[in-house]
Amino acid sequence: MTAEANSGGARRFLLSAQGWPYLLTPFIPLAIVLEVAHADAVLIFFVAALGIVPTAALMGLATEELAAKSGPGIGGLLNVTFGNAPELIIALIALNAGLQEVVKASIVGSIIGNILLVLGASMLVGGLKHQRQTFNPQAATIQATMLFLAAGALVMPAIFELVEGQGLPSPTAEAVDYDSTVENLSLAVAIVLIGTYLAGLWFSLRTHKDLFNPPYAEEHEEGFGWSVRRAVIYLFVAGIAVGLMSEVLVGSISEASESIGLSQFFVGVIVVAIVGNAAEHWVAILVAYKNKMDLAVNIAIGSSAQIALFVAPVLVIASFFIGVGPMPLVFNGFELGAILIAILVAQVITNDGESNWFEGVQLLALYAILGIAFFYA
Amino acid sequence: MTAEANSGGARRFLLSAQGWPYLLTPFIPLAIVLEVAHADAVLIFFVAALGIVPTAALMGLATEELAAKSGPGIGGLLNVTFGNAPELIIALIALNAGLQEVVKASIVGSIIGNILLVLGASMLVGGLKHQRQTFNPQAATIQATMLFLAAGALVMPAIFELVEGQGLPSPTAEAVDYDSTVENLSLAVAIVLIGTYLAGLWFSLRTHKDLFNPPYAEEHEEGFGWSVRRAVIYLFVAGIAVGLMSEVLVGSISEASESIGLSQFFVGVIVVAIVGNAAEHWVAILVAYKNKMDLAVNIAIGSSAQIALFVAPVLVIASFFIGVGPMPLVFNGFELGAILIAILVAQVITNDGESNWFEGVQLLALYAILGIAFFYA
Amino acid sequence: MTAEANSGGARRFLLSAQGWPYLLTPFIPLAIVLEVAHADAVLIFFVAALGIVPTAALMGLATEELAAKSGPGIGGLLNVTFGNAPELIIALIALNAGLQEVVKASIVGSIIGNILLVLGASMLVGGLKHQRQTFNPQAATIQATMLFLAAGALVMPAIFELVEGQGLPSPTAEAVDYDSTVENLSLAVAIVLIGTYLAGLWFSLRTHKDLFNPPYAEEHEEGFGWSVRRAVIYLFVAGIAVGLMSEVLVGSISEASESIGLSQFFVGVIVVAIVGNAAEHWVAILVAYKNKMDLAVNIAIGSSAQIALFVAPVLVIASFFIGVGPMPLVFNGFELGAILIAILVAQVITNDGESNWFEGVQLLALYAILGIAFFYA
Repeated sequence: MTAEANSGGARRFLLSAQGWPYLLTPFIPLAIVLEVAHADAVLIFFVAALGIVPTAALMGLATEELAAKSGPGIGGLLNVTFGNAPELIIALIALNAGLQEVVKASIVGSIIGNILLVLGASMLVGGLKHQRQTFNPQAATIQATMLFLAAGALVMPAIFELVEGQGLPSPTAEAVDYDSTVENLSLAVAIVLIGTYLAGLWFSLRTHKDLFNPPYAEEHEEGFGWSVRRAVIYLFVAGIAVGLMSEVLVGSISEASESIGLSQFFVGVIVVAIVGNAAEHWVAILVAYKNKMDLAVNIAIGSSAQIALFVAPVLVIASFFIGVGPMPLVFNGFELGAILIAILVAQVITNDGESNWFEGVQLLALYAILGIAFFYA
Repeated sequence: MTAEANSGGARRFLLSAQGWPYLLTPFIPLAIVLEVAHADAVLIFFVAALGIVPTAALMGLATEELAAKSGPGIGGLLNVTFGNAPELIIALIALNAGLQEVVKASIVGSIIGNILLVLGASMLVGGLKHQRQTFNPQAATIQATMLFLAAGALVMPAIFELVEGQGLPSPTAEAVDYDSTVENLSLAVAIVLIGTYLAGLWFSLRTHKDLFNPPYAEEHEEGFGWSVRRAVIYLFVAGIAVGLMSEVLVGSISEASESIGLSQFFVGVIVVAIVGNAAEHWVAILVAYKNKMDLAVNIAIGSSAQIALFVAPVLVIASFFIGVGPMPLVFNGFELGAILIAILVAQVITNDGESNWFEGVQLLALYAILGIAFFYA
Repeated sequence: MTAEANSGGARRFLLSAQGWPYLLTPFIPLAIVLEVAHADAVLIFFVAALGIVPTAALMGLATEELAAKSGPGIGGLLNVTFGNAPELIIALIALNAGLQEVVKASIVGSIIGNILLVLGASMLVGGLKHQRQTFNPQAATIQATMLFLAAGALVMPAIFELVEGQGLPSPTAEAVDYDSTVENLSLAVAIVLIGTYLAGLWFSLRTHKDLFNPPYAEEHEEGFGWSVRRAVIYLFVAGIAVGLMSEVLVGSISEASESIGLSQFFVGVIVVAIVGNAAEHWVAILVAYKNKMDLAVNIAIGSSAQIALFVAPVLVIASFFIGVGPMPLVFNGFELGAILIAILVAQVITNDGESNWFEGVQLLALYAILGIAFFYA
């Protein structure tokens, strides 16, 4: 990875828990070659999906190196801000391509994926090794409460459409043209969410920072010691690479999903939602195995709160400037049901500050049930 | 306020946290003058709304003076019973005028206003001064559970209408004529709610009274020492004044809301819901600032539980005798979504017995989101 | 009951808290006589309902005797597996008769009956004797979480029908013919539920058995000392008797409900759901009175979790082989509302590990409210 590292160190890094994503690096040029050669869409789609994993991992690594150089305050801010940058980039490119229903599906998929798949796998893997794991319920509760706030925000536009408008979108739609009332409603709600998100940053980085473990900090006590300049360049390059892979991925979604016989909705809510998070998910499971449940819960629940309170409203605002027109946060019935159930479960699971393997199984089972329903949608 | 008080004491009282509502007293005669002079409806509406504040505050004060003379048992009963009397009087007069959708909107507005606006402002103001505030989660949980019971009661008639009847009312309706089945269903549910409310009084005033702080008691250890006779007369006069102001307010709602361009639904759920509670809201914020969070939570959650379990069913029963006919508790989609989200949030926020300023911000943000949705309804 | 028992011991047993169900034994032959004589359907229905009570009680007793002989591991498994056998037998026979809406109503009725009626009565009776009762909130939380998982599973097929299909079934339907997509969806969900249930057995009987009290064990430390052979024979005979009574009961449902003027839905959700559990319900109230709240909560919440995660999916799978065709888990609006409210309440009530008489009243009041809504459905 780095010039200084001798070949033995590089091999060791690549085979470590942190390094494996970079083994997928060859998929990046391969995706570009296939795209240029107009290969089969299904092939392009999966190669590009694999290619996103190392670019997202590199973004995460560069962010941490930069954060390590910036002191806890700014460092925490950087970590939090760029934490979901890959998802945001993928969604922005899909939005620009007019795939609004895929974008909304990937928002929902990220929220439920973090709560059910990531936290479930963490609790299962951690619980198989440790009889009983504990974490600070207070920090978890604050984040679970943010999800309830988000629930209100994500549900009200749908209620508006049910009461006054044209009903909820069909899961098979690509993009729906709404009237301007619900677009304005969504915009206003998005602004309130971002304001609350900023207040939450102030809270967790300033007035009550002792409540939260600095994410990842424990895992990288030493880091690689990159210079600020190097970290910024890597962050920039990784961002470009995420964008490039996303272009290829998004360009092949329609044809690929048709060929495999899956709906674009399913591809968005399950596949797209997983690839941008893959590296991060792995970290959560790893720290759970090491019995650092506070960190695992923080990654999973914090990440889904960030998607709901920051990524989703940014996408709504962006939709006024790019793509096929404003995208109000009107979710379809499956998405609404899934979000509400997942948020309730997040609260129930975190509120006692304890976990065991069976709680993990239950979360994974719920993810499977939602996945089955999405498959038939 | 009182003849004994010398002019300096009166000035001090009026400028105190408890006394400011009485500064609005001049709006009472002004509202009457404007009403008689057939002034602009918008002007009448806002002057009458301001005029309700001191009358409601006087009802509260007279109740406490009477309670102080009656010993803890009867005193607690008086406090609880007359605690939401202004809201009840306003709603009865609107019911009599046939504005059933405004009445239901004001019920919902009182429930979510207490949980989100009052508790949110209390937690924000208290949390800005104190790093971390605590309260007894047990008493709060009992009241939050009452809200879940209420949720079942407030949702079932709507489910009935969705499954068997004519659907939910439109937010723009004034009053809807339902068939007698759902009217009987609502009546039966109302009777169960009132029975549970009475059992709850027995519980909190008799068998488990140590669980609850006597509301307000700490704030008025001395009081003004009114005689029972004086307190009863003031209570009676204040009740008449609330009724008078409500008549003026209700009489101007239709025209005023049309002139401003707001729906009657919005006026009912936001404006009407706030004016009857203004004095009480202020007390909750004040005690939170003084770090008496038990009392603040008790006022906010207890008040919304009382609206749901006592005021709402009393209005259903009253509707069989006054106004345009029985008013079943069939809420519109916005109201149902708002109640359910608010009740869930109340449980999540209170269940750990701790609060901080960011929890306050989150509650206020949710109130803003609901308000935005109501505005566009 | 047993040949060894002298007549005095038998009388004492029959009049004890455990023995009273056997006083209803004469209703078993009476039901058969009335059935053969083609008596009035209403009479047959109620006599058969009373006749089920002793047969279900005998199944419970024989299971415990068998479990006592089998050591804690297998014994626990037997207790859990046969714990809801009577309900399962009744439902299978109704399924075979084509009464799918009655079957689904009885599933819902068992879930809400355990949470609201059984736990409510236990908390009320226990709380009237003891000021404050405590139980282990951890075990209760694990079971409440299972109910949230079940909520997801029970709601998704309904969302599918609302979004893509023909809407929810009417409460007055007898059986609805769904298209094969929702049938496959329900089958897949049922398989996930059963898998989770089996994992839960492994959890509670193997890896974390210290978390749970062995159900009933404390009540029957000595038991009757039946031989394995005798216990198996009694279990077998009791199972046959439950089936026989169920045949008579199910055969009279249509005509009886019409004669009394109740819907089949109401009969299924209230009456059928109660009779199969009557003996068990009594035990829960009894142990609550003796201040063993852990056991009471375990019976009530554990039983409803078992219905949702085991009995319901087994019935779905069975419907592919018997009766009028596959029965997907598409519930009507009343059933969905009732399940969701009851599950939320179960979590709120159990999560603090304390109870008092007023919590019992609240649960019973909610059961009454749901019952009123079902009555008017």
